[in-house]
Amino acid sequence: LRIGIFDSGLGGLTVAASIKKEIPQAQLVYFGDTARVPYGPKSKGTIQRYAKQDANFLLSKHIDILVIACNTATSFALELLKKEYNLPIIGVVEPGVKAALTASKEAIIGIIGTIGTIKSNAYQEGISRFKPRATIIAKSCPLFVPLVEEGFLYHAVTRLIAEEYLDVLKRARIDTLVLACTHYPLLKPVIQDILGEDVRIVDSAIETAREVVSVASQMGLMPDTNQEPVHEFYLSDIDYSFSSVVLDELGLGDLNPVEVDIEEF
Amino acid sequence: LRIGIFDSGLGGLTVAASIKKEIPQAQLVYFGDTARVPYGPKSKGTIQRYAKQDANFLLSKHIDILVIACNTATSFALELLKKEYNLPIIGVVEPGVKAALTASKEAIIGIIGTIGTIKSNAYQEGISRFKPRATIIAKSCPLFVPLVEEGFLYHAVTRLIAEEYLDVLKRARIDTLVLACTHYPLLKPVIQDILGEDVRIVDSAIETAREVVSVASQMGLMPDTNQEPVHEFYLSDIDYSFSSVVLDELGLGDLNPVEVDIEEF
Repeated sequence: LRIGIFDSGLGGLTVAASIKKEIPQAQLVYFGDTARVPYGPKSKGTIQRYAKQDANFLLSKHIDILVIACNTATSFALELLKKEYNLPIIGVVEPGVKAALTASKEAIIGIIGTIGTIKSNAYQEGISRFKPRATIIAKSCPLFVPLVEEGFLYHAVTRLIAEEYLDVLKRARIDTLVLACTHYPLLKPVIQDILGEDVRIVDSAIETAREVVSVASQMGLMPDTNQEPVHEFYLSDIDYSFSSVVLDELGLGDLNPVEVDIEEF
Repeated sequence: LRIGIFDSGLGGLTVAASIKKEIPQAQLVYFGDTARVPYGPKSKGTIQRYAKQDANFLLSKHIDILVIACNTATSFALELLKKEYNLPIIGVVEPGVKAALTASKEAIIGIIGTIGTIKSNAYQEGISRFKPRATIIAKSCPLFVPLVEEGFLYHAVTRLIAEEYLDVLKRARIDTLVLACTHYPLLKPVIQDILGEDVRIVDSAIETAREVVSVASQMGLMPDTNQEPVHEFYLSDIDYSFSSVVLDELGLGDLNPVEVDIEEF
């Protein structure tokens, strides 16, 4: 079982780490578009063009399932990619939406993500479709990604910024919060602490990994080997700076990335 | 006089604003590579490829002088572009270096910039060449750009992060600080406040604008018209989100950008 995963950068590693936990025998083929990161503030047309190149590259690596481990790319390009390619494609939005609908009792649901993800309305529409009366409070948190990449996971300024961003959600008394950005699971401790233990936090990375298990099982692709898989790790810019704190936190260790000229795909 | 200016994004607008102040009659042709911003954490090869595309695009607009309003692109690609194109090309590094050498009395000079600019050693080498005994303290400040883009120019967390980043420079008792990133002039008030009034802050945007005046004069290109110039403003992604606080601060008003597919150049 070869699972292709792409993200705008290294945030999608939270999804890769979750899939690795669920299916330890699967071979992961990760592509991070570090030469063009971030996707968050960019437009739909730009993201669709990038997502097609990212998918083309991973398909050239003979994958069985494609995971879009990037909320912006899922919001803007999942439907387009599903139309163009003939393999199961899993985005991070739907698993997060489903989990939020299950978790929320009061139907007061918060969504946090990048500017692009929030503007795309993908989560808001997904939730409203099934729970039209749900109260949804969506808030973009543009500084969270750079804070994670700087390794400021438990830093005082991260807490201050999080308090400011989350204030509107707290005042609205949300009972469930969706982390609609793959970097955000790394900030879950501080977010949970600010919102209190009663608020259920939905981690799209974990939910997406569960969806991958379900699709792989349906297709009869679950590996029954005991062989240690060899993961492949590609970046469009291998010198991209990313705090090692994050890699340690994810338990992914050394990744030995290979560089890819993504504009050729 | 048509002056082409490119930057990885919108930070170079500080340079454009400074040039506009120095030569109000010049026509500015600005290109911001917002589809691939930021350049800071990316590698030399990637930045060189991007800088050539950016220059090719501006040359297609019949400019007389090319300004690289991006420290990372100047550090990695100025020499390359000078070899390939036959017009005056001005980067932001040399004007900043010259101004720092003039400003510093004790020759204890601080440099702050993105990870890419600091790693490139362009400023450090520039200063050492003329003042081999200078003490140079270089420090990357990766969160400054996202803080500016969020419009947090006078925010408490910006001050906290700045205090942390600048601590090593303060303890080294620098007498001069070079703002080696085009976003940073917008943080000058908080930086000056933390370092104290005795530390001279060199603003690369202002120094670069002065260099443009000097080159335009030498070439006999200084305009002697009273006509109001029409500026042109291009972005590789026109929907890029950028706090309007910044545009207000720069006095640039509405920019009405036109979108360019930069990968075609």
